[in-house]
Amino acid sequence: MRHLIDPLDFSQEEITSLLDLADRIRSDPAAYQDVAAHKKLATLFYEPSTRTRLSFEAAMLNLGGHVLGFPSETVSSASKGESVADTIRVVSCYADIVAMRHPKEGAPFRASRYSRIPVINAGDGGHQHPTQTMTDLMTIRTRMGRLDNLTIGLCGDLKFGRTVHSLIKTMARCKNIRFVLISPEELRVPDYIIKDVLEANGIEYRETRSLEESMPELDILYMTRVQKERFFNEEDYIRLKNSYILTSEKMALAKPEMAVLHPLPRVNEIALDVDNDPRAAYFEQVQNGVYIRMALIMTLLGLADPKAPKEGN
Amino acid sequence: MRHLIDPLDFSQEEITSLLDLADRIRSDPAAYQDVAAHKKLATLFYEPSTRTRLSFEAAMLNLGGHVLGFPSETVSSASKGESVADTIRVVSCYADIVAMRHPKEGAPFRASRYSRIPVINAGDGGHQHPTQTMTDLMTIRTRMGRLDNLTIGLCGDLKFGRTVHSLIKTMARCKNIRFVLISPEELRVPDYIIKDVLEANGIEYRETRSLEESMPELDILYMTRVQKERFFNEEDYIRLKNSYILTSEKMALAKPEMAVLHPLPRVNEIALDVDNDPRAAYFEQVQNGVYIRMALIMTLLGLADPKAPKEGN
Amino acid sequence: MRHLIDPLDFSQEEITSLLDLADRIRSDPAAYQDVAAHKKLATLFYEPSTRTRLSFEAAMLNLGGHVLGFPSETVSSASKGESVADTIRVVSCYADIVAMRHPKEGAPFRASRYSRIPVINAGDGGHQHPTQTMTDLMTIRTRMGRLDNLTIGLCGDLKFGRTVHSLIKTMARCKNIRFVLISPEELRVPDYIIKDVLEANGIEYRETRSLEESMPELDILYMTRVQKERFFNEEDYIRLKNSYILTSEKMALAKPEMAVLHPLPRVNEIALDVDNDPRAAYFEQVQNGVYIRMALIMTLLGLADPKAPKEGN
Repeated sequence: MRHLIDPLDFSQEEITSLLDLADRIRSDPAAYQDVAAHKKLATLFYEPSTRTRLSFEAAMLNLGGHVLGFPSETVSSASKGESVADTIRVVSCYADIVAMRHPKEGAPFRASRYSRIPVINAGDGGHQHPTQTMTDLMTIRTRMGRLDNLTIGLCGDLKFGRTVHSLIKTMARCKNIRFVLISPEELRVPDYIIKDVLEANGIEYRETRSLEESMPELDILYMTRVQKERFFNEEDYIRLKNSYILTSEKMALAKPEMAVLHPLPRVNEIALDVDNDPRAAYFEQVQNGVYIRMALIMTLLGLADPKAPKEGN
Repeated sequence: MRHLIDPLDFSQEEITSLLDLADRIRSDPAAYQDVAAHKKLATLFYEPSTRTRLSFEAAMLNLGGHVLGFPSETVSSASKGESVADTIRVVSCYADIVAMRHPKEGAPFRASRYSRIPVINAGDGGHQHPTQTMTDLMTIRTRMGRLDNLTIGLCGDLKFGRTVHSLIKTMARCKNIRFVLISPEELRVPDYIIKDVLEANGIEYRETRSLEESMPELDILYMTRVQKERFFNEEDYIRLKNSYILTSEKMALAKPEMAVLHPLPRVNEIALDVDNDPRAAYFEQVQNGVYIRMALIMTLLGLADPKAPKEGN
Repeated sequence: MRHLIDPLDFSQEEITSLLDLADRIRSDPAAYQDVAAHKKLATLFYEPSTRTRLSFEAAMLNLGGHVLGFPSETVSSASKGESVADTIRVVSCYADIVAMRHPKEGAPFRASRYSRIPVINAGDGGHQHPTQTMTDLMTIRTRMGRLDNLTIGLCGDLKFGRTVHSLIKTMARCKNIRFVLISPEELRVPDYIIKDVLEANGIEYRETRSLEESMPELDILYMTRVQKERFFNEEDYIRLKNSYILTSEKMALAKPEMAVLHPLPRVNEIALDVDNDPRAAYFEQVQNGVYIRMALIMTLLGLADPKAPKEGN
């Protein structure tokens, strides 16, 4: 039985298969509408994350399956003194697959060790959020036609942003990737990412304070939010924040085929007029997230793909 | 693409079509049990309203569709700094139609402007609650056989009661309607309703303090709750409240075919012994609410009606 | 129309039929996957109980039916001044059957008096929890092959544990049952159970303080939690608590075919290493809970059993 706890649980080859399946689903969703009939997904959300939860639920419903679960700890008694190990053994009696969101790092991993059904990590603390990473990869591949030979700009909070760390680790397995790491000094990528991931693998990268100057060279711009509470003093925040807001003016400096991604929710780090730019890919990214989760549920449950390419073709 | 934000969004002719469809559904619900197969309704409830939410969910399930969403802001992260515009664009990737309840007036309207899917206003602050109004119209038409030539008594809190205002505005488009507005001085219908709706359209109305005296002339009695907190002092409330409680004694003064409506929940403004009076239509009204919402979902999604009357008949 | 409010609402013969149906479902779940198609279960949980709610929801989904409802009062407006009588009449318009959890004793019974659809008590205060009792019976019968001629040990909090009281009352109707009541002095079975249930029916029982000494004679060991807050002083709690923790050492004293039950959640009253003992039946009990609820929904809705034994066989 497979689980998905860390984005690196899947080999690059398995990720390619997953993205291929997600592409087939996107091109003909109706072919998949009964694939998971009579199967049940449990969404165990120990902290609310409405976007992620609804994306999983939409994915399962699109496959003709059912959904049950809880949307937050406030409406759950699941955690009352009960261990995650016991909870997952109970839920294994109710469902065929589970998506777990938990404020504590490692909780989904621990659950997977006791589970009789596949466990998907739907975000554990600041740790991992693998279905977001898969969604990012799908969006990059869809927009650029490849996952290799790309210059990827990551902008904003690169210190605490778990989606950024997962994306770096996963893209580091692709060929000829260059990273441009755009952040204020206070929110630079942690040293272990620089040393153990980038330098250890001989991956080209550049750290910079300026989004504006970086724009022309980027194939992908991955935006994240710069939160006020990350700064020691408000003056620094006020001085810096506008540098990391993406505007039409900055977009004018970018390549015509560049793609802008954002894990959402966006607050003000992307100006509203960028939404109409064809390079804005962040709502498409949301839609891809549903297809990736459909593909993932099918893969982990071992469901047959009605549109699988014939062998020998 | 159509939305339903304000009851007046639908012309009188469209309302007639909606009520006709709801009638056909009521007379043969099984014929409609797969009409919305593979479609998804998102219920986005930024404040809890269990009756309304469950009515929408029952409607969608009765049509063979699926439901996802959140029941209150306490279990949702949807509102964390994210605009309604962004939320609806995200939810447009998850569902085919949305019912939105929001404490702020205008939020569903704003959502509809950014949505790729039909938006139904499931109540926005003290503003509008159009599916309640449609339900009221269906119940009146079912009981009386018509929406014209009626004397309609509205009783209780006519100042803050949004269902009352919507009903007046919508019924004002029917022929030969007379309103009897029964309320304490403090809770009279607002002036703009009197001037802009009733007087501007030459509609007959009478304001009165006495439910008892009004009973004999009414075809419809629409009850609402008189809340203690609306009064400046408790003495006034205590002196007045019994006048606006419907009892069997008061029912004895009414026409034999009168119908009593109430948007529910009822607290004590209708005595329990009135429940067994055949003129009590408020639980029937709840059932009609499900049929109206089924008809509305079908209409907004453009689903074919399996029992549509043949042309030329 | 039947409801299930108290475990004794069902005769011993009806319980046997229910357990037989649950057994047939367990041996071929796929045969039942569309039995409740187009039916709707409402889960009205006025206090959270995730295990019980998800078990009901899994049961209904396994039968091909739909689910709607609320998981706790915090996300519901159902209770805002509205009586249970009104709520159930409203919900009768939305669903075909209801499972109600309520902190107040008697609320599900009161609801059943006004309901147009079957009501299942999913736990009311410290009072009753009949589907737990049915689950316990199924697990005992499955493990031992019979409900008669058993020595049943009940261990832990026998004073406040409603599942214990229900199990005693229900098992008291079986033949040749012996109870061993294992608890600290402070948490003994209430006198009315001793006098009105056990002694009034001439049922053999023994009260003891020692789990260890009782182990060898037991066919069933039903564990419950000893909560600190039940004790007058902490010293007593600390002195006693280890006596009521089930360990591998204590298991070594028991019969090889004994079965350990627990209503869950377990905190520390069963050591983790007991989980791997084949006599540990508490997770199997969870799975049986789903089958029993499937059987109960079918029974109360009068749904045909596709695997019913032919008459004359």
